Amino acid sequence: MRDAFHEDLDKISDQLVEMTRLAASAMSRATTALLDADLELAEGVISRDEEIDTLRRDLDELAVELLARQQPVATDLRIVVTALHMATSLERMGDLAEHVAKVARLRYPESAVPAELRDIIVSMGQIADRLVLRAGSIIASKDVEAAKSLGGEDDEMDSLHRRVFTILASPEWRHPADVTVDITLLSRYYERFADHSVAVAQQVVYLVTGTWKALDAVDGDR
Amino acid sequence: MRDAFHEDLDKISDQLVEMTRLAASAMSRATTALLDADLELAEGVISRDEEIDTLRRDLDELAVELLARQQPVATDLRIVVTALHMATSLERMGDLAEHVAKVARLRYPESAVPAELRDIIVSMGQIADRLVLRAGSIIASKDVEAAKSLGGEDDEMDSLHRRVFTILASPEWRHPADVTVDITLLSRYYERFADHSVAVAQQVVYLVTGTWKALDAVDGDR
Repeated sequence: MRDAFHEDLDKISDQLVEMTRLAASAMSRATTALLDADLELAEGVISRDEEIDTLRRDLDELAVELLARQQPVATDLRIVVTALHMATSLERMGDLAEHVAKVARLRYPESAVPAELRDIIVSMGQIADRLVLRAGSIIASKDVEAAKSLGGEDDEMDSLHRRVFTILASPEWRHPADVTVDITLLSRYYERFADHSVAVAQQVVYLVTGTWKALDAVDGDR
Repeated sequence: MRDAFHEDLDKISDQLVEMTRLAASAMSRATTALLDADLELAEGVISRDEEIDTLRRDLDELAVELLARQQPVATDLRIVVTALHMATSLERMGDLAEHVAKVARLRYPESAVPAELRDIIVSMGQIADRLVLRAGSIIASKDVEAAKSLGGEDDEMDSLHRRVFTILASPEWRHPADVTVDITLLSRYYERFADHSVAVAQQVVYLVTGTWKALDAVDGDR
């Protein structure tokens, strides 16, 4: 019973890893589309978000089948519930990448990112990419220590997020308000993406150890 | 077995209704704190968000106990999974109310909302309140028709959200960028709150009918 259960659990884990790959690819393509004002790339990210949504629905089904077939109890049940929460975060990350792509599309043929903010957006894109790929390898390797260590890894994203708001509030910032709106939302999308990556990785601790971890929705203050 | 299952399901349903009440109260107090620059009220919303987070953890536990005790299959299982997704949305709505309160706290003793936008924020707060309370009564009454009809009910919120961005992009908008940032985020928080309310209500259709409904994460484009 336990073995069959863990075989099913491996399927779910593979699905979660695949979702991290799709989310990483979507966000990195969205960042390029944003910085290069690449409409085709942006459209591609937007149209392909459905793939992640579908994977998440499949994962719900997998979990339901697993529960029906294995009838796990206690800790095993919580593990499945945790996997469902992870899938919710990963689908959401795909949506956030799509939002970045939609800002790129909205401002085409212009780039939505003024020159003085390009470096920050590039860094945010890189951190987002690194965090979600690390989350994926943590899910695949079930590396609990790596999962725990990822906890503070989005501090860098949070500080970039704060720096963006400092720049927007500075007297040197003279761009029209619609640019301010775009940058505000973009910065938030990247920060949320990082929050979800860390949350997903941390849930691996529970997935592996069965030690109950409160699954609070994660979020930055701004 | 079915009866015991439905008794457990009623407990979960009551918990979901209670979460809608807490989310509604949090958002309406946050809106007042925002418009009146009421620091104490804002602090209250922020400190009480934990209540919704706790309810959500309890609901996870309830669901796990139900699954362990009743060992439901097929549709019944999907119903429990759906309830878990609803709880995730409701906890998120509490977070969004907390974010509104944090903007109020950040700008205290000023109000973060300029005079010309007060009416829109008031309306957004009222729509948010109405939608989440309707979602709660729909969960309580299991009124599938009402659930279906709520589908388009956040159009009003979406159009207010778009109107905010039109105002921010207009030449008449002469406020400093930090005000633009606040309004951009606030408008997004209200719009997301409404999206989640509608999603929660629509999931009742599945909760009642057992007709599988894709549980896509909801989101506005901007």
